[in-house]
Parts: sequence; C-alpha cells; structure tokens
Amino acid sequence: MSSTDAGFSSINGRFACEVYWGDCDPAGIIFYPTYFRWFDSATWAFFASVGYTAKRMRAEARSMPLVAAECQFMHPAEQADRCEVRSSIERFGGKSFVVAHEAVRVDGTVLARGKETRVWGRHVNGPGSPMKGEMIAEDIKALFRAG
Amino acid sequence: MSSTDAGFSSINGRFACEVYWGDCDPAGIIFYPTYFRWFDSATWAFFASVGYTAKRMRAEARSMPLVAAECQFMHPAEQADRCEVRSSIERFGGKSFVVAHEAVRVDGTVLARGKETRVWGRHVNGPGSPMKGEMIAEDIKALFRAG
Amino acid sequence: MSSTDAGFSSINGRFACEVYWGDCDPAGIIFYPTYFRWFDSATWAFFASVGYTAKRMRAEARSMPLVAAECQFMHPAEQADRCEVRSSIERFGGKSFVVAHEAVRVDGTVLARGKETRVWGRHVNGPGSPMKGEMIAEDIKALFRAG
Amino acid sequence: MSSTDAGFSSINGRFACEVYWGDCDPAGIIFYPTYFRWFDSATWAFFASVGYTAKRMRAEARSMPLVAAECQFMHPAEQADRCEVRSSIERFGGKSFVVAHEAVRVDGTVLARGKETRVWGRHVNGPGSPMKGEMIAEDIKALFRAG
Repeated sequence: MSSTDAGFSSINGRFACEVYWGDCDPAGIIFYPTYFRWFDSATWAFFASVGYTAKRMRAEARSMPLVAAECQFMHPAEQADRCEVRSSIERFGGKSFVVAHEAVRVDGTVLARGKETRVWGRHVNGPGSPMKGEMIAEDIKALFRAG
Repeated sequence: MSSTDAGFSSINGRFACEVYWGDCDPAGIIFYPTYFRWFDSATWAFFASVGYTAKRMRAEARSMPLVAAECQFMHPAEQADRCEVRSSIERFGGKSFVVAHEAVRVDGTVLARGKETRVWGRHVNGPGSPMKGEMIAEDIKALFRAG
Repeated sequence: MSSTDAGFSSINGRFACEVYWGDCDPAGIIFYPTYFRWFDSATWAFFASVGYTAKRMRAEARSMPLVAAECQFMHPAEQADRCEVRSSIERFGGKSFVVAHEAVRVDGTVLARGKETRVWGRHVNGPGSPMKGEMIAEDIKALFRAG
Repeated sequence: MSSTDAGFSSINGRFACEVYWGDCDPAGIIFYPTYFRWFDSATWAFFASVGYTAKRMRAEARSMPLVAAECQFMHPAEQADRCEVRSSIERFGGKSFVVAHEAVRVDGTVLARGKETRVWGRHVNGPGSPMKGEMIAEDIKALFRAG
C-alpha cells in the first residue's frame, strides 16, 4: 500500500440508471451482469465528469481495461426501479486504480456494492495498436480530489 | 432489381445457439433483441465459413454496418431451447447485401424469421478511420454460390 | 385496415437514453440490437406514462409479446451520444398494436426509425400460466389520444 | 467453515462459448460483463448436467439468486475466440454454495477466473411468489461428487 494513494477521492460520480424489462430474468428480478454493465458505464461517466470524456479518451487512444471486478448483491431489484450508481476512486496504484461502486435505489436502499480494478492504458500507436499501461500522472489523480 | 443478384446463395450458414437464462425476460420467454444478437453472430459465422473470418475482416479493416433489420417472431422460445440460425444471402446489391435468417429449434419449430441489410464496408485508412462502402466483387459473390 | 384505428396516437412517449461503451462494437459504433433494447424500454415507458406502469402490468399479469420488429439505421451512433426515443401508437388492431419509434440524437439527428408489432396479452391464470391475447378495450386506446 | 463442505466437487461442468462481435467493445476486446453472462450460463449448464435441468428448475419453481460474484481477467479475448468455462462447486454452505469458474481459450490460455456465491432458493408458492432459501439436501450435494 505504500506506493498507492488510498482513500483518495472525495469527489463522487453519480450515474442514473433504471432496471428495464430486458434487464430482468424469468425470476422477475435483475439479471446480475446488468450491475457490471452499470458499473462500467458509471466509471466512464465518472471520468467524463472530471474532464476525461469519451471523446477525449478516443482522441488520446486511451482505454481502461479491467484487471478484476466484484459485486455483492444486497437486495433484489425489479423492473422500473430507478437507481443511481455512486462511484469513487478507492485507490490509485502506479498504473492501475480501483473504483468502488454502490448501486442505490431512489428510496435509499442499497442494491449492490462492487469494485472494479482497472489499468490506465493507451494504444500507443493509435486505434487498433497494442494497449500499454501508463503511470497515472499526479494531475489526473488531482482531478478526483475535492477542490 | 435489375442491377442486383437475387436468389443467389445456395450455400447456407448454420449457427448453433441456445436460449440462456439471461436471454429471457420476466415473462419467461426470450427477450426479443436476443434474436438480433443471434442474427449478427450468424452473419459473421456465415462469412467466416466462406473465408472471411473475423481475423481476416480485422486485418483488412472491413466491417458490415447495418442499413436495416427486421424479424417476425413465430413461436416463443424458452431457456435451454437449442436452436440453429440458418442464413442465406437473399440478394447482393452494388455495395450492400441482404442476409435472410431463420431461427429453428432443434425439433424443427421455426421460432423466428428475419433479414439484415448490410453494407460491405472498409475503413480505408485502417482501424479508427471512416468507413466507406465498397462494390461487392464478383469473386466474393461467387463464394456464396454452390460449387 | 377497416377494423383498425390508424394514426391514432397524438401522445408521444419520450424515452431518454445514451450510448454506452458496452453498447458499441469493435467498429466503434453502436451494436445494432441496442436499438431494439431501447425500443422495448421505450414501449414500457410509453405505457407507464399513460397509467400502465410496470407494477400495474405485473399485478394484472399482463405482457406485450412481440409479433414483429424492424428498424432502419440512418446514422451511426457513438459512445456518449445522448438520445431520445420518440414513440407513438401507429395502429391499434383487435388484439395487437404497432408502436413506431424514432431514435433521435440530442442535436436532432435521426439515428434510427423502427416499429414493433405487439400483442396485448395476459397470463389469465397468473404468473407462469399461458399468455392469451385480449381485445384492446376502447378506454385503453383512449389513453393514447390527446386530451 | 466447519458447517460447510469444502473442495467438494470432483465433477466439472463444461460450458462451450465463443466471443462474438457484439460481445466486444470499441477497444476490440471482450466487454467484461460478458464473462458474467458466461458464468451464469455455465452454472445453469452445470446443474443441468447433474439432473437439475432448466425444465426441472422451472417445474419445481427453483432459482439460484446471487449473493456475490467476482472475476479476475487474465488475458484479453477477441472476436471468434472459442472458449470453455470449466465450473466446479468450491463449497456448499447451508443454503448457499460457491461455484468457481475458469474461462479457458481453446489453445489452453486462461482468460478469466471467477466465482459466484448463490442461494439455493425456491418460490414456495409457485412462480411469482417470494423466493426462500432452502437447506441444500445431501442428495443434491452428492450429485456433484465423483462416482
């Protein structure tokens, strides 16, 4: 842990989402990979909120491939449940980072809690070329610090 | 129709698939966009079967964007139904083509029938560059003709 | 056409959506079945907006299985494109109806136009029992008429 | 751990799958929630292989809701990669169990390793009624023991 920045983020991402008919399975509740789709979208939205929009990520040939992902499912969600994924940076490593996510229903019920570990990567020779992890610069980390 | 080749294909693509738990909705039957996912995969498999594998498509920076898609749903499908999508080229146009698909359950029941209209395209300056439609060469069309 | 009500709806459904990273394919544009996922969600939202919420649909054991679906793709969509699906009832038949959808990007560009033909059905003996189509009552049709 | 059965399974589930075009994202590699879709299907296939088919699960109003899921991603997968998910019961608890999954490419490369923790549940008053966890009977556990 010595080379990492823990408890770094005081800015939270907020990603609004809803459980749709097609996100649910024959048991009538959310099909669980849906949460990971949400987490992925929430991470992109979080980065966009601090300046790393999809457009910029594309222009700079950046990507954020996953190393690991996990989720605990606390409460079943049903069609039409309106939710929000609250995201924060749990930890910055050298070339990787951990995003913590919490999926909360509009009434405050926590539906699921999870984490994604991702690499901060770039396709160094443009789109289609191999991806390489890059050291996460201090100015990027600073974007996630409260002002 | 005069500039097109109708009824061209006598080779059929065959794409094996199965209805999974997560493909079904709370009504307990297949969520309909699943058929279009199958059709897309079936088209890629069909082209691979005549030599245009995913690897080759990638190397030649080709893509096959959609102009239109449609499907008639004849019979509800349930989890664990084993199926096959049978695909054929219905028509070659200048730069576009129509793939007809039939999703058939293993017992012979036709579950759905559909079509995709696609452009034969290439990212002329490599991956990430704009896509342009290309005239479909005779030797490509010939690949779909029975020997 | 004589037994149907054409051009019926003057109420429009509005369903907000966005193209996410995971909705796009290696060509960098929206994977086309995504539009059908949107259309399905848009239809549920449209019905909810006139009183047939997911909760009520569930309580009354109703469903809206598909007979057919189609879409024309006019313009490629990319990650982070914010869109709206505008839905209207194109036609009420006896036990079926047609919903017309238009996916419009926030700048006004029409990305796709499609239709779904659905049955107005009910699981007459509750959840899990067989689904039967029902005549669409006049008071339901009236919900989609402008006041 | 005292009330659980660890290292129980010597039977392995085998679930064949393939990376499709629509499973990949603009970086050209598999979109990570796809692995969880595979894991879910692999678990259903594993249970079917010992007698708990989808049909039987439905007839007995059983379900297997998730408590937690996790995955480590070791190697990026690309379109047309043929894979197999190898599943085993890592542990039986009272009413829950852990399935370990390994996604292996046809050339032997391990793409991902994960786990699902699930409840062994039943909708005690039939489809649509609330789900309750049930003690996992010895004869069910025995199905996963080598003969």
